[in-house]
Amino acid sequence: MAANDTKWIAVDWGTTHLRAWVFGSREEPIASLKSEEGMGRLNPGAFNAAVIRLIDPHLPEGGRIPVLCCGMVGARQGWVEAPYRTVPCPPLGGSFKEPEDCDPRIDVFIVPGLSQKRPPDVMRGEETQIAGLLHENPEFEGVVCLPGTHSKWCQIRAGKVIRFQTYLTGELFSLLCTQSILRHSVNQDDWFNGGFTEGVQDSVEDPAGFGRELFALRAGDFLADSSASARSARLSGLVIGLELAGARAFWESGPVTIVGAERISWAYSAAMSGQGVKTEVLDPEATTLAGLRAAYRQLQGTAV
Amino acid sequence: MAANDTKWIAVDWGTTHLRAWVFGSREEPIASLKSEEGMGRLNPGAFNAAVIRLIDPHLPEGGRIPVLCCGMVGARQGWVEAPYRTVPCPPLGGSFKEPEDCDPRIDVFIVPGLSQKRPPDVMRGEETQIAGLLHENPEFEGVVCLPGTHSKWCQIRAGKVIRFQTYLTGELFSLLCTQSILRHSVNQDDWFNGGFTEGVQDSVEDPAGFGRELFALRAGDFLADSSASARSARLSGLVIGLELAGARAFWESGPVTIVGAERISWAYSAAMSGQGVKTEVLDPEATTLAGLRAAYRQLQGTAV
Repeated sequence: MAANDTKWIAVDWGTTHLRAWVFGSREEPIASLKSEEGMGRLNPGAFNAAVIRLIDPHLPEGGRIPVLCCGMVGARQGWVEAPYRTVPCPPLGGSFKEPEDCDPRIDVFIVPGLSQKRPPDVMRGEETQIAGLLHENPEFEGVVCLPGTHSKWCQIRAGKVIRFQTYLTGELFSLLCTQSILRHSVNQDDWFNGGFTEGVQDSVEDPAGFGRELFALRAGDFLADSSASARSARLSGLVIGLELAGARAFWESGPVTIVGAERISWAYSAAMSGQGVKTEVLDPEATTLAGLRAAYRQLQGTAV
Repeated sequence: MAANDTKWIAVDWGTTHLRAWVFGSREEPIASLKSEEGMGRLNPGAFNAAVIRLIDPHLPEGGRIPVLCCGMVGARQGWVEAPYRTVPCPPLGGSFKEPEDCDPRIDVFIVPGLSQKRPPDVMRGEETQIAGLLHENPEFEGVVCLPGTHSKWCQIRAGKVIRFQTYLTGELFSLLCTQSILRHSVNQDDWFNGGFTEGVQDSVEDPAGFGRELFALRAGDFLADSSASARSARLSGLVIGLELAGARAFWESGPVTIVGAERISWAYSAAMSGQGVKTEVLDPEATTLAGLRAAYRQLQGTAV
């Protein structure tokens, strides 16, 4: 309806979801859109159609508008590979990758991810959230934790990502809950509860005991000395505690800024509080949007 | 054919397999049999039929012979629950559990598993292997490692299991290889190779880095600085090293007796050699059989 007001579109295109925000001339989006057509479900060549299905009603009648994308859409298996930029470097910079097979009404720009040579590590999407954080608070220096399937810890200094580490925490928790022998003994949806804090503490103090503590959850079920809910909470505590033990160098001099969904951020915040570390939690959607706005400004700067 | 020679039958009934050995009057079995009807595939009430399908041709025409079983057949979801005996205790002892719904030609006796109250732990089947080891070597004292899906470490003294620990190592390795993001970057069958020893060492030295080292395997794939075979070897090293880090109290004063399948025992032996620990490897089938023979002798003793 107000499609002719559309000036540009911001897109967060991850493995499982596709989200888009339509911008006019104001700071806030006119519309926010979402589909399940994540990068993981699309064959090469299906990307243009997927994004058009979502944004078509918002495209102006004449002209061509910029569509700024971040996330796994730039992976090797994505729309077109946007080669990693190597840290240390600012979270945004260099040139965007432009796929060739675009609808004539859009110009697509993909934000490159970041890589680290030693130890080997990569990110796609989180660099845009870090850019958003720096866009809102240009003087920020310190540590950003982005919990999730593959949790990231990033050291930021002088506007640059200095180094980062990724932990398989969320994926490990989910596999243990749904695919391992523990699936009979836990309830994945009921994990933030009594037992969590103790699980964190046990892994932080004795990370080597991880594999044994996992089986002890199963044995505790057989020996009937715990509830499924307490076991789930302990399991999430053990997995997050193992990550904290590994990432100690990032958080021990605190504070830590957490960018993540509400419940998981709350858990990480509680886990770090238990270690005497102060945390601040930022909304992930707002932070991604701020980063895509920063990318849009970079694009405008390039165009001028 | 020589069914009338059958004196008793030994059965190892695990989650995925059912194995039976037919004994006459001599020490060595007359026949060894195997089916895929593991406890995990059977409904309650289907156990008698499953074992009869396997051993029927070997049952004598008259009379009733003893069938000694160990393993998950005695679990809550098995044929009939054989309640755990609590350590410290000898690996065999107390009474066998006798299911009621047996073919009239057999008397079934199920060896009970062992449990530990603090920390909570359980075993079913490994107690019979330990009994086999003690049957062959009654003076044995020290540490037995039984690697596998759920690896066990057991302290043996004065003919008793004093304490034990279970690690989810094999299951974790298999889940990571087949279900996680790493499945794109490794080859589960090609894991004992260059990279293994270094993976063990890295986990032993820094168990807290486990979750990070997992993701680094994936990143190493993206950044093209390793092969799938080297990554698989490193993954198995990391997982086994995490177990070694946790079980240090068991092996640090060595030596360790390993009871396990050839390839996995070889890997554990190499991993411990790297830590300066001497190991001896025992054949798991022979050890199980020796344990079931010990159980049969206990039964004869009771009957007298």
